[in-house]
Amino acid sequence: MKVPVVRNVLEANEQLARENQARFREKGLLVLNLMSSPGAGKTTLLERTVDALKDQIRIGVIEGDIQSTYDAEKIARHGVPAVQINTDGGCHLDSRMIQAALPEFDLNNLDLLVVENVGNLVCPAEFDVGEDYKVMILSVTEGDDKPLKYPLMFSKSSVLLINKVDLLPYINTSVETIRRVALDINPHLEIFEVSCQNQTGLEPWFAWILARVPHYKSV
Amino acid sequence: MKVPVVRNVLEANEQLARENQARFREKGLLVLNLMSSPGAGKTTLLERTVDALKDQIRIGVIEGDIQSTYDAEKIARHGVPAVQINTDGGCHLDSRMIQAALPEFDLNNLDLLVVENVGNLVCPAEFDVGEDYKVMILSVTEGDDKPLKYPLMFSKSSVLLINKVDLLPYINTSVETIRRVALDINPHLEIFEVSCQNQTGLEPWFAWILARVPHYKSV
Repeated sequence: MKVPVVRNVLEANEQLARENQARFREKGLLVLNLMSSPGAGKTTLLERTVDALKDQIRIGVIEGDIQSTYDAEKIARHGVPAVQINTDGGCHLDSRMIQAALPEFDLNNLDLLVVENVGNLVCPAEFDVGEDYKVMILSVTEGDDKPLKYPLMFSKSSVLLINKVDLLPYINTSVETIRRVALDINPHLEIFEVSCQNQTGLEPWFAWILARVPHYKSV
Repeated sequence: MKVPVVRNVLEANEQLARENQARFREKGLLVLNLMSSPGAGKTTLLERTVDALKDQIRIGVIEGDIQSTYDAEKIARHGVPAVQINTDGGCHLDSRMIQAALPEFDLNNLDLLVVENVGNLVCPAEFDVGEDYKVMILSVTEGDDKPLKYPLMFSKSSVLLINKVDLLPYINTSVETIRRVALDINPHLEIFEVSCQNQTGLEPWFAWILARVPHYKSV
């Protein structure tokens, strides 16, 4: 007898992802699933995004980490509700974890929910959490061969933020190569070149979000 | 009926790891399992190490990647046997994959076998492959909070190479913090600060390897 365990796990997750998504749609929420390698800049991007948009839309954040509450505390200091999920060794978030975190938010009073996944360029791409869009960050310090070597995340993401471009003068990474290979894998990818540290290039990313928040009307 | 699937997977892997290790010991091989986030510098470290040591010891390399043969080709250009394992989506190497790759080498004519794991700071730490030592690389561009957030790999590794120290003037990362938290998790960790790009700080790492190759006698 053959037991297809991995398929079962993924199918169970898909079912819960659909439940999450139905709930998010009913509440008129935009939900983003933010993914990257460890240290590519997810939390710093979130801090910048919260600071730039929190007076225009109501934002909530779910932080996924193996352990510690470090990132959720960082985000909460910016004045928005943040919930930490500890995966206790697990290398990705799944829909069940997100479902368990939702009672911590008042979803009727949110416009945008960002899920910061565990730092991992592989596994999170396989597990939907009910998000509208997957957004990935690649730091230029990781090198320009990453789309070639980790294609799944590039193929599943709607947005690629190429971060830490301020370090380009000191390293051998070609943004042109990243763009070319990433677009070859996924021609629909929207690409923004940014430096979260120096706060450059972020305006198009903020505009991308605002254009997708269901109830947001620009003034 | 409760089926403890994860435990079974890990136990089956441990059994094969012991088989691999017995074979490596019989052949008098030093085996290192090299792990890091994507883009921290594993392949560049390997290229430097092969160039520095290939006239003194006989080196073989197993490259683990989700897909592509990019890294094995890179290593083979340095004149040592290199085998590529493609995990086809899998986020870590395991003992069975290593066992399947071994017939590609003449183990009687090797002193050092380095296994370069899939770029991932989480899952590879849970799967022994029969290695003598786990060696991890952390790029300073990943930030100084990584030991706190990904403690398992730091606790399981014998060596931590802190790489890309040439970029320290341009970023907000404290090597002192990395050292303090990493040693708090694992007081036995040997730490080397290096720049693989600029080839600085690597001599103590080369000496560490040579001191552990069973048949190597320094002249």
